[in-house]
Amino acid sequence: MLSEFDLIQEYFQRPHHAARAVLGIGDDCALIAPTPGLQTAISSDMLVEGRHFFAGEDAQRLGHKALAVNLSDLAAMGARPVGFTLALALPSADRAWLQGFSQGLFALADAFNIELIGGDTTKGPLNICITVFGELRPGQALRRSAAQAGDDIWISGTLGDARLALAGYRLELKQALDAASQRAAAVRMHTPVPRVELGVLLAEQGIAHAAIDISDGLIGDLGHILKRSQVGATLDIDALPAGDILATQETALRRAYTAAGGDDYELCFTAPVASRAAILAAAASVATPVTRVGSIEAQAGLRLVGADGAPLDLQLSSFDHFTS
Amino acid sequence: MLSEFDLIQEYFQRPHHAARAVLGIGDDCALIAPTPGLQTAISSDMLVEGRHFFAGEDAQRLGHKALAVNLSDLAAMGARPVGFTLALALPSADRAWLQGFSQGLFALADAFNIELIGGDTTKGPLNICITVFGELRPGQALRRSAAQAGDDIWISGTLGDARLALAGYRLELKQALDAASQRAAAVRMHTPVPRVELGVLLAEQGIAHAAIDISDGLIGDLGHILKRSQVGATLDIDALPAGDILATQETALRRAYTAAGGDDYELCFTAPVASRAAILAAAASVATPVTRVGSIEAQAGLRLVGADGAPLDLQLSSFDHFTS
Repeated sequence: MLSEFDLIQEYFQRPHHAARAVLGIGDDCALIAPTPGLQTAISSDMLVEGRHFFAGEDAQRLGHKALAVNLSDLAAMGARPVGFTLALALPSADRAWLQGFSQGLFALADAFNIELIGGDTTKGPLNICITVFGELRPGQALRRSAAQAGDDIWISGTLGDARLALAGYRLELKQALDAASQRAAAVRMHTPVPRVELGVLLAEQGIAHAAIDISDGLIGDLGHILKRSQVGATLDIDALPAGDILATQETALRRAYTAAGGDDYELCFTAPVASRAAILAAAASVATPVTRVGSIEAQAGLRLVGADGAPLDLQLSSFDHFTS
Repeated sequence: MLSEFDLIQEYFQRPHHAARAVLGIGDDCALIAPTPGLQTAISSDMLVEGRHFFAGEDAQRLGHKALAVNLSDLAAMGARPVGFTLALALPSADRAWLQGFSQGLFALADAFNIELIGGDTTKGPLNICITVFGELRPGQALRRSAAQAGDDIWISGTLGDARLALAGYRLELKQALDAASQRAAAVRMHTPVPRVELGVLLAEQGIAHAAIDISDGLIGDLGHILKRSQVGATLDIDALPAGDILATQETALRRAYTAAGGDDYELCFTAPVASRAAILAAAASVATPVTRVGSIEAQAGLRLVGADGAPLDLQLSSFDHFTS
């Protein structure tokens, strides 16, 4: 039977490569040497079976997603990823599962050249808790509180395909997706790509003000920026960039899932009008599409308008873990 | 109904006091400004209902314990605590539970003047994942790999009362404890006191070599030091300081629970003979009893001897989450 220590050694302990950590897995604590002059950005996300992912979800995809949603928080702050800890509750020490999970996890970690520096494993209902660490220069963080009236609102990538895939799985769609479309949309749901390079460029170049990553749906997440910045906004709902599959669906569905789908892990950021060219150049340099979708305004509240500029009164609400 | 954001605001967001964090709860990441020249020590522990604590465990005690076991890891490294993140899966947003949990958590946090800087809350089977951050000077960490032949082995405080309380709850004892004894032993199980001040002094004064905190039982945890340091040890089992209640029990039980009880959260550390006086002085200065219980030796393996110095062959094993 696989013991806790064998499990860690076999699946999670890797040669001490490139090593940002002074001391990695295997002691009471990990040790990192912060880069002199930089601040440390820290974020924790917990993923629960049946809540954030289906029971029986593919382990490799799960390893990817668990780290991706955490890296997305660093991206939204503009911090350069350094490393992460993993705490894992597992119903049993299943080798096939551990193999897949660690592969998915480390493939993404390697893509961003970051290290697993410590953590914990225990028996229990499947629960994955990752804490990520990043670094950035003082004053460069893209805070939620920094939006200013007159700012453009930008979105990276596209929105809504993850929510569309979920609707497909749940048989919520009036017209089911064909198998190829369901698969394509599901890729967005299962393997989000955190917009780390873009977030880091926006912060390092000082060309954006506020940012957040879109996890619970754009309207709710943008709402956090508005509240913290004490501003309002007008959002052009038909300008929202829909995912490839969602773009082929009817207007009402497209509007609902781009504006309030959730699980997108794209960045929503605000930036002065004077930054437009710099933002397009920065985004192009990291091959990340960006779209302007509205404006920050002094007047409180979020106003939705359609392609014709006419106000819309849509009842869209964001995801909340305890009221939904 | 209590939403996720209300829950965080009501129970976990506090006035930004004393603030080691540049930016605390409420953005995509927390930001901390590392003290120039110091390293950051990081540890994560996950506590699962039915595994690390009973279903229905008192929330206030749980808040204390969840943070205490993490601080104990910092203590074992000799790092000075700075802050922590909390990721929490809850079956429901129960106000009474949240009230108690946050009280227990913050009472301990305040005792060590540290801050909750971020985290996550979600619905799910009760699971508490805390990641703690501390700081220490490069080269001062009490690593598991640093024990040297000739070192004394020391234990802080007393061992075994937590295990005795568990045995009482489980009706495993030949002779049940009286109610007052069960309650007294249970205090050690439910509200361990992390030996932070002692660990920090040992590291800062450079008077100890290796350290580990005793969570899975002394023999198993000391075994990690021996393995990493490539040394062996002789342990005087009758010198092990038993908890007040355990000390009144029969020899076999006392030996078993001091040597391999678990859940003690005391420090086991090794130090050169020349440090004896300094260690006693350091321990006295923070009102933490310490006891010498054996010696590190070049010969591999762990040898147990009784009060008369005669070798013992006890079958004691450490706790493992996946094989037990």
